[in-house]
Amino acid sequence: MNIQHVLESQQFTRPLLNELFSVTDQMDRVLARGGTQDYNDKIMASLFYEPSTRTRFSFEAAMHRLGGRVISTENARDFSSGASGESLEDTVKVLNNYTDVIVLRHNEVGGSKRAAKVSRVPIINAGDGKGGQHPTQALLDLYTIYKERGSVEGLKVAFVGDLANGRTVRSLSYLLGKFERVKLYFVAPDVIQMRKDILEYLEENEVWYDTVDKLGSIIPEVDVVYQTRIDKELFGDKADEYEKFAKEYYIDPDVVQSMSPQAIIMHPLPRLKEISPEVDNDPRAAYFRQARNGILVRMALLSMLFG
Amino acid sequence: MNIQHVLESQQFTRPLLNELFSVTDQMDRVLARGGTQDYNDKIMASLFYEPSTRTRFSFEAAMHRLGGRVISTENARDFSSGASGESLEDTVKVLNNYTDVIVLRHNEVGGSKRAAKVSRVPIINAGDGKGGQHPTQALLDLYTIYKERGSVEGLKVAFVGDLANGRTVRSLSYLLGKFERVKLYFVAPDVIQMRKDILEYLEENEVWYDTVDKLGSIIPEVDVVYQTRIDKELFGDKADEYEKFAKEYYIDPDVVQSMSPQAIIMHPLPRLKEISPEVDNDPRAAYFRQARNGILVRMALLSMLFG
Amino acid sequence: MNIQHVLESQQFTRPLLNELFSVTDQMDRVLARGGTQDYNDKIMASLFYEPSTRTRFSFEAAMHRLGGRVISTENARDFSSGASGESLEDTVKVLNNYTDVIVLRHNEVGGSKRAAKVSRVPIINAGDGKGGQHPTQALLDLYTIYKERGSVEGLKVAFVGDLANGRTVRSLSYLLGKFERVKLYFVAPDVIQMRKDILEYLEENEVWYDTVDKLGSIIPEVDVVYQTRIDKELFGDKADEYEKFAKEYYIDPDVVQSMSPQAIIMHPLPRLKEISPEVDNDPRAAYFRQARNGILVRMALLSMLFG
Repeated sequence: MNIQHVLESQQFTRPLLNELFSVTDQMDRVLARGGTQDYNDKIMASLFYEPSTRTRFSFEAAMHRLGGRVISTENARDFSSGASGESLEDTVKVLNNYTDVIVLRHNEVGGSKRAAKVSRVPIINAGDGKGGQHPTQALLDLYTIYKERGSVEGLKVAFVGDLANGRTVRSLSYLLGKFERVKLYFVAPDVIQMRKDILEYLEENEVWYDTVDKLGSIIPEVDVVYQTRIDKELFGDKADEYEKFAKEYYIDPDVVQSMSPQAIIMHPLPRLKEISPEVDNDPRAAYFRQARNGILVRMALLSMLFG
Repeated sequence: MNIQHVLESQQFTRPLLNELFSVTDQMDRVLARGGTQDYNDKIMASLFYEPSTRTRFSFEAAMHRLGGRVISTENARDFSSGASGESLEDTVKVLNNYTDVIVLRHNEVGGSKRAAKVSRVPIINAGDGKGGQHPTQALLDLYTIYKERGSVEGLKVAFVGDLANGRTVRSLSYLLGKFERVKLYFVAPDVIQMRKDILEYLEENEVWYDTVDKLGSIIPEVDVVYQTRIDKELFGDKADEYEKFAKEYYIDPDVVQSMSPQAIIMHPLPRLKEISPEVDNDPRAAYFRQARNGILVRMALLSMLFG
Repeated sequence: MNIQHVLESQQFTRPLLNELFSVTDQMDRVLARGGTQDYNDKIMASLFYEPSTRTRFSFEAAMHRLGGRVISTENARDFSSGASGESLEDTVKVLNNYTDVIVLRHNEVGGSKRAAKVSRVPIINAGDGKGGQHPTQALLDLYTIYKERGSVEGLKVAFVGDLANGRTVRSLSYLLGKFERVKLYFVAPDVIQMRKDILEYLEENEVWYDTVDKLGSIIPEVDVVYQTRIDKELFGDKADEYEKFAKEYYIDPDVVQSMSPQAIIMHPLPRLKEISPEVDNDPRAAYFRQARNGILVRMALLSMLFG
């Protein structure tokens, strides 16, 4: 299947997701052999309008594992600032002459789509704006579930924490809705519970879900716990309310104890205090393996874009 | 022919320019094959004392297309700042032990010459100081004219906009003066018209030129329109005067309509509002092809320096 | 011999130092052939929590000369700042999935050891904290002495300047103490003379040393003069005292004149005004050769870590 750009989760149909899983599995074997030099004539530009060193490193490591080359800036506002004032479109048209793929982190929602409209080379959206998309994160999360559990169908997945504002959780819920018999639990207090647009999408597509505010009751039943960070600042001067929720959803060895032996714990990272470091060595702690899957999925996407 | 450093436009004689054109043409064919790995044992340092992401990317992409390797900073003032206070000369002598070529963007006029004086490896001037040189820009502009039109001799070239302060336009005028029967039109209001030093050079070398302040009258006659950005700040509180000139020299589809079918429009980029984006798809709009020529010319210069 | 991480000078025993010298000698021959592509499947991360462009460039050039690949940031505080607040340990665990070696410059003493505790891939300490270690600098200094003089045993080495605060000088004194019959002269005014912990270590290990405050008397006798920078700020409002010492320990052609013809002058660089540039062309001025040895030693350490 042909993809031209990677702009948003919605572009990934089930057949395309299956192909992505299969190419990512291949990349796992490629990486085990120390990578490939197949793409040593390709150049990737990391065009970051705001710093995100972790995301940038993940893409750049993926490109290097494919044998490719990288030019990189976290200072891309230099293009559009002050006397320069160049439009994103012009910047992209110029870079089309320098590189074979552009990984774009933009500060405005929709930046990637604007870039793709004028670009001859593939654009990969590495996050655009606060409420925008970050599709490769959702894809690596989905791949992690598939790889850790063997398949996605029929799994019970609990999302925990700030579900209203986490774009990852929103995109992943959307993608999981494409798989049969999944059951989604949204575990959060009302103020940061999953928003209506996603819930309506799930209803329209007859995806089972439940919203709950306690973690304890559902923990023994689920196959995947997807933990997220609750932003203290959301609670303003109600710091005690934040403390209450932070405690309520904290994952420590006791919580893990009550999980199924095959269940896994995921986290998009960075972690603050949502998961005790004592949990890290439990085989169910999948969050650092998730980071490795990020390289694999990005290698797969790059190779699919190069064709 | 041997070149040791690339410091200023003036070092490029006609025979050297001919060789550069010929090597650049070769690089076009190399790039069409996906580049080369010939220089995979060479390291280039991007030593930028001030950010210029576009120029840096162009050099780094060129080095990668040759198979080479890059170490890079836009933070080179770190060397000479505060407690460190290292001289440019010492920094260059140290880097001589790390790399095979140094691309230097310095904040002081003459920085590149100072660097070259103590360097065993080639220095390429990627811009030094406000009024300083930026020779590779002038060379890629000249190559663009040659490539788009087949030769430079006998062409009519109109420079438009801020000719007093644009170092690119000054260097390119100088280089064009080396070719027979060229005719140069300098189209600008008096306050930002081409300065006397260049005009005197042209007179001494019997190069035909004219200074005019209207674009319309000469547009149908010329082979090349080299558009530049007029800096609003130059006009201080006379904002209405800026608006008048900006409108006067604006290139839109109507202006293009009156150009010869073989004429081309160039612009060093970034563009602000000097050329309507509606013009971009006209085959005469050469400014994005100019960016690609930047890679080719820099590949050629690097390969000539490596010998 | 196997090394897992490079964390501090103390881990280098005499046999390990001998092996390092021997591998570094090999790297000299590798570099003379234009480097190697042996490690083109390896990725190094430059993880710098504070900028140190010189150190970063040296490691990255070394990695490239081995054929390896680099991902790089001088902005690593991005990981631990603000909303992210990720622990160094988590950052390292994530990077373990991206790279084959991590070169870490951290802002806290002991950062490298904390990193090594959780890392599956080798950590190289590229400086941690003000009073912390910077072992590769001491190793390249030691290698320079060995290479310039043929062996270290029996040499007379004078350290000059700020011995109290210079971590390089402290680490190098420690390493020199492992070699037989070396004589160390510490040349500094009392306020910045070598601290007791190192002097006690030398006494315990029966290493000959002397503390003096005049340079002139010992200059003709020594084999190595290791010059350092005296920080003006150390003297607060006693600027005249600083001027006195700066003059006292200044190395100019007259001082060099009185040195033995085989003696060498070293400096960790950057240099401010401690050595006259007129000395640079004297064959005894070894400080720029030192920079080249930095590449060689780092190539050797990387190849030893890759095994």
